[in-house]
Amino acid sequence: MTELRTLKVALLGCGNVGAQVARILLEDADALASRTGARLELTGIAVRNLDTKRDVELPQELFTTDAESLVKDADLVVELMGGIEPARSLILSALRSGACVVTGNKALIAQDGATLHEEADRAGVQLSYEAAVAGAIPILRPIRDSLSGDRITRVLGIVNGTTNFILDQMDSTGAQFADALAEAQRLGYAEADPTADVEGHDAASKAAILAALSFHTRFALDDVYCEGISSVSAADIAAAKDAGFVIKLLAIAEKLTDEQGATGVSVRVHPTLLPRDHPLAAVRGAFNAVFIEAENAGELMFYGQGAGGTPTASAVLGDLVSAARRIVLGGPAGTETTTGHVAALPIDAAVTSYYIGLDVADQPGVLARIAQLFAEHGVSIEIMRQTIHRAEDSSVESAELRIVTHRATEAALAATVEAVKRLDVINTVTSVLRVEGV
Amino acid sequence: MTELRTLKVALLGCGNVGAQVARILLEDADALASRTGARLELTGIAVRNLDTKRDVELPQELFTTDAESLVKDADLVVELMGGIEPARSLILSALRSGACVVTGNKALIAQDGATLHEEADRAGVQLSYEAAVAGAIPILRPIRDSLSGDRITRVLGIVNGTTNFILDQMDSTGAQFADALAEAQRLGYAEADPTADVEGHDAASKAAILAALSFHTRFALDDVYCEGISSVSAADIAAAKDAGFVIKLLAIAEKLTDEQGATGVSVRVHPTLLPRDHPLAAVRGAFNAVFIEAENAGELMFYGQGAGGTPTASAVLGDLVSAARRIVLGGPAGTETTTGHVAALPIDAAVTSYYIGLDVADQPGVLARIAQLFAEHGVSIEIMRQTIHRAEDSSVESAELRIVTHRATEAALAATVEAVKRLDVINTVTSVLRVEGV
Repeated sequence: MTELRTLKVALLGCGNVGAQVARILLEDADALASRTGARLELTGIAVRNLDTKRDVELPQELFTTDAESLVKDADLVVELMGGIEPARSLILSALRSGACVVTGNKALIAQDGATLHEEADRAGVQLSYEAAVAGAIPILRPIRDSLSGDRITRVLGIVNGTTNFILDQMDSTGAQFADALAEAQRLGYAEADPTADVEGHDAASKAAILAALSFHTRFALDDVYCEGISSVSAADIAAAKDAGFVIKLLAIAEKLTDEQGATGVSVRVHPTLLPRDHPLAAVRGAFNAVFIEAENAGELMFYGQGAGGTPTASAVLGDLVSAARRIVLGGPAGTETTTGHVAALPIDAAVTSYYIGLDVADQPGVLARIAQLFAEHGVSIEIMRQTIHRAEDSSVESAELRIVTHRATEAALAATVEAVKRLDVINTVTSVLRVEGV
Repeated sequence: MTELRTLKVALLGCGNVGAQVARILLEDADALASRTGARLELTGIAVRNLDTKRDVELPQELFTTDAESLVKDADLVVELMGGIEPARSLILSALRSGACVVTGNKALIAQDGATLHEEADRAGVQLSYEAAVAGAIPILRPIRDSLSGDRITRVLGIVNGTTNFILDQMDSTGAQFADALAEAQRLGYAEADPTADVEGHDAASKAAILAALSFHTRFALDDVYCEGISSVSAADIAAAKDAGFVIKLLAIAEKLTDEQGATGVSVRVHPTLLPRDHPLAAVRGAFNAVFIEAENAGELMFYGQGAGGTPTASAVLGDLVSAARRIVLGGPAGTETTTGHVAALPIDAAVTSYYIGLDVADQPGVLARIAQLFAEHGVSIEIMRQTIHRAEDSSVESAELRIVTHRATEAALAATVEAVKRLDVINTVTSVLRVEGV
């Protein structure tokens, strides 16, 4: 091999993903050099504690607690510490000193991507974060580059493996949420404190990033409506299954046009019913997938492992090689394409279909009264199905009513549900869930 | 909008895809300009015959039969004529005059990509062809860029919509090949002369392109083993279904290491059995999907529309915006990364699992003799299942034996099948099909 230029790589953080990135940089050095046109020299790994035991054996001399000095001297900085600080300050300092930055820090990008991108643009360097959304799956680059000549209309993503594993367990075994969560924790798919995953916060950060790239507009994390899966019951799952649906936690970003012709983007995370023949319904276990609808391309889906040290390291390395190639070739840094300014819509303005489960009195005319109420609120019913449960003496024990609506606004639906609750023939509203893909 | 630079776009060919590209360039001019940083001005559309009736209404003054003059004056040339000549000469002439070229011409790229890439590198311009493989699905760019820090070990693609539609019809209705083909022709999924699709030639070109990008090595079209679907019978499909498989025409490129440690790449197209729970098995109708296995990323799948004017135009536009951005920003052209030199393996060296259907005599010891023969040839049996068909008087009418092997070389399998045929207890070898994903 001819003499190649060397680029210095500083790694910040050595958890699951960081350790694998370090291993690959060391083990695959020759292959990476031939694809990059430069040798990627790992100059150090900044960690909080030098004595922490790590799964991957790495040269001890690479470790340091002095992240600031490491960053100062690097051509490329890989940030995999997570959290807002000190990650944010270190990235800003790296960009200011002219280093390209690769990060997997979804929370930071979702919260403060604008500042970081401005700094990268000012310095003329590259900031990339493919690993921040859907782990190993190439999704941000295809949206930004491959679909740059198209108009994305909707993104539906299974972007959190923990919740997909839990919902999949509930669906396949009939388990309650708490038991499925315990199983996920036992297998290492869920953390001891699972809040960020099960309450949808992790997915919300990813939704904000997907929305920004898809609609060329930056959205604040506050613009993302977020509802987790902890209130999804085994009964919800069973009822959904019975009606031909599966429940998935989806990150959704879609462009909506209201009756006055004004457009906005609804960005939200919530448990969602999907028909069992929808491509996303087949995404099992801890896998991730992102389903995209674009005006010209039609329906696309990207599927793969959404987490795990080695898979996520693949995405980090892809960004790293790409940034290094650009340094070698001398071209300008790729800028983000937030050229649009679409309004973020509040959850009330979101438009979707709904599944409503009701426990009703078995009286003549109940269906008609409920149907009338939906009609008065402008919510059109697609499917209405009543199941009567009888005791052994064939007297009625309970009557269950399941309704799937056509698309309606959240506001209209909420008003409908409130009115339904006030009907004397309603015992309980057992569930209200959103439906996509119908 | 501030004054933007204008880039001249020449379009060669105005078929299904070309007409949609022209329409989008005209209709979406403002959005494309804001994402590109330059106005993309369609300066002309070269066609063979000015009087041909087209589905899309386009300004008559854009049409010309003088492709050479059109190309001379362009910054970006979009070639969608298909075929080898005059497409090849026009692309070379465009590259030499410093224009970036976007093409969807899989046959030309598979046959002569090396020459075109050399010319593009010499001129320092970009040559891209995302639309050549799997239509709207972003697949070449993710392989080249996103997976640049990983090692792809295997690619399995459903890259021909016509054959997938036909096989899907056969699977869901039990139809024979000829009837499913006729249905595909009636619906416009198959051409009047369906040879290129059903005999696998179209998929073979795509396999060569996928292999080149995945293994950083250029493969000749002659390196691709090619077997179409015209000999797949309704009985094959039914037997596969019964055993839990679906038959798909796959384009396969995989790295194999032999017992001496030598590596090579097997590139091939043939009907293949896939377990029904494999992600590719769910790809229905005329949809395409590419399944990738990489050392670090694990399993990835890219799914979407593989053909059609508007979807394919989306891929063309993505390449066009990307090339235009690069011209605007002034960076170097992206070069192909054929830095490796992996040998193309002959089909005999391919390693896969096999499904073998045998019509056997109902005699004691038949299974043992056949199993013995497989063992002697070094082919290990995974599943062996005998079904006895009895007449009404319960005498044996026929005995059917179905075998699924573990992975073995084509050479070993072929020798085994030859030996099996010579056994006196064998009436017929009813089918020999390759199996993936087990």
